[in-house]
Amino acid sequence: MSSTDQPVLLAAVSVMSAFLLGFQARRVGWSRMKHKIMPPAVNGPPEFERTFRAHQNGVEFFPMFLVVLWASGLFCNEALAALAGLVYIVGREIYFTGYSNSSRGRLPGFYLIIVVLLTLTVTAAGGIILSLLDKYLNIKLFSRSK
Amino acid sequence: MSSTDQPVLLAAVSVMSAFLLGFQARRVGWSRMKHKIMPPAVNGPPEFERTFRAHQNGVEFFPMFLVVLWASGLFCNEALAALAGLVYIVGREIYFTGYSNSSRGRLPGFYLIIVVLLTLTVTAAGGIILSLLDKYLNIKLFSRSK
Amino acid sequence: MSSTDQPVLLAAVSVMSAFLLGFQARRVGWSRMKHKIMPPAVNGPPEFERTFRAHQNGVEFFPMFLVVLWASGLFCNEALAALAGLVYIVGREIYFTGYSNSSRGRLPGFYLIIVVLLTLTVTAAGGIILSLLDKYLNIKLFSRSK
Repeated sequence: MSSTDQPVLLAAVSVMSAFLLGFQARRVGWSRMKHKIMPPAVNGPPEFERTFRAHQNGVEFFPMFLVVLWASGLFCNEALAALAGLVYIVGREIYFTGYSNSSRGRLPGFYLIIVVLLTLTVTAAGGIILSLLDKYLNIKLFSRSK
Repeated sequence: MSSTDQPVLLAAVSVMSAFLLGFQARRVGWSRMKHKIMPPAVNGPPEFERTFRAHQNGVEFFPMFLVVLWASGLFCNEALAALAGLVYIVGREIYFTGYSNSSRGRLPGFYLIIVVLLTLTVTAAGGIILSLLDKYLNIKLFSRSK
Repeated sequence: MSSTDQPVLLAAVSVMSAFLLGFQARRVGWSRMKHKIMPPAVNGPPEFERTFRAHQNGVEFFPMFLVVLWASGLFCNEALAALAGLVYIVGREIYFTGYSNSSRGRLPGFYLIIVVLLTLTVTAAGGIILSLLDKYLNIKLFSRSK
């Protein structure tokens, strides 16, 4: 596989989303210092607990996001999946800052994240089903150039 | 790489397992509503805490599962790995519903999960070792068609 | 793609790091038994809570580690990324045993982990940027053999 055949857009979005998650982990650490919550404690004032849970939610969703990002990008369309991934990254940041401020504040970012994940899941599932039909039943439902 | 060269069975199982994990996250949300546990709280009645932990366990294991699924599928046999992945998905659901009902109820699903993960790990490790010997020492222990 | 084209070093490091994470989960289970903390409880004596959080930290970082490991390996250099991955695995073990002993004990392993992750992130980002320039703008900044 030559360098230009690799899905570099998907890789770029993956690294960017990993970097954001790492930066949010860093901000949980800053919140620990601000509220003097020393590890291993994870309980404290509501502001700290919201920040902690905002990061945890990002951790919980990250592998699911990566799976549908790559499945959608490889079996449907790389550029569209990468674009959805960028929206996911924006949604994650809106979620984190919103949730840090208030429990209700997590909702706008959360709805955006859910829309992106459903979009990636549907396009991934569609592409995978077409690919399964093609590979194992030799049924080509849509003519695709690749 | 043409469309039919891609490991679509592994992708299908990955997306299905991601979807199940997302659905289990949704059910934690429903359990929050039922028991009136508002975010960011994660403590409450035992039934809620079991449901919460059942999902968390799925989150903790998901990346490990993906690694051994893909390593086994790419370096040993794709169809066998995908089949083991389907058993994992069933085990995850048995674990989640069992653990939601009682602490002991998590055990049958858990044992199934462990058997699958050990199977995938051993087949992955075997395939990787053969591939390392082939690629770096030019030793071909088993004649393989691919 | 023939067997020898696959990034087997990255796969080997991924499976090894997954195995270590699974073994650390096992040791949290042993700590549960030692301190008689039955699931779903996650609170208990400081030693148990430190062990629990040491594993959780590994869970949080694992997908980020995999993303930058593979991005660095595929877009910069596989052998260097795999070597960094081995250092990460060592750092994770130092972190886990250190944190189990005391809160301060988590720091040496943690610093090692951060250095590895930053190294992998920078090399991944560099390789991805070069690959983006090459693929979409046809700009080849460094002549590369592959």
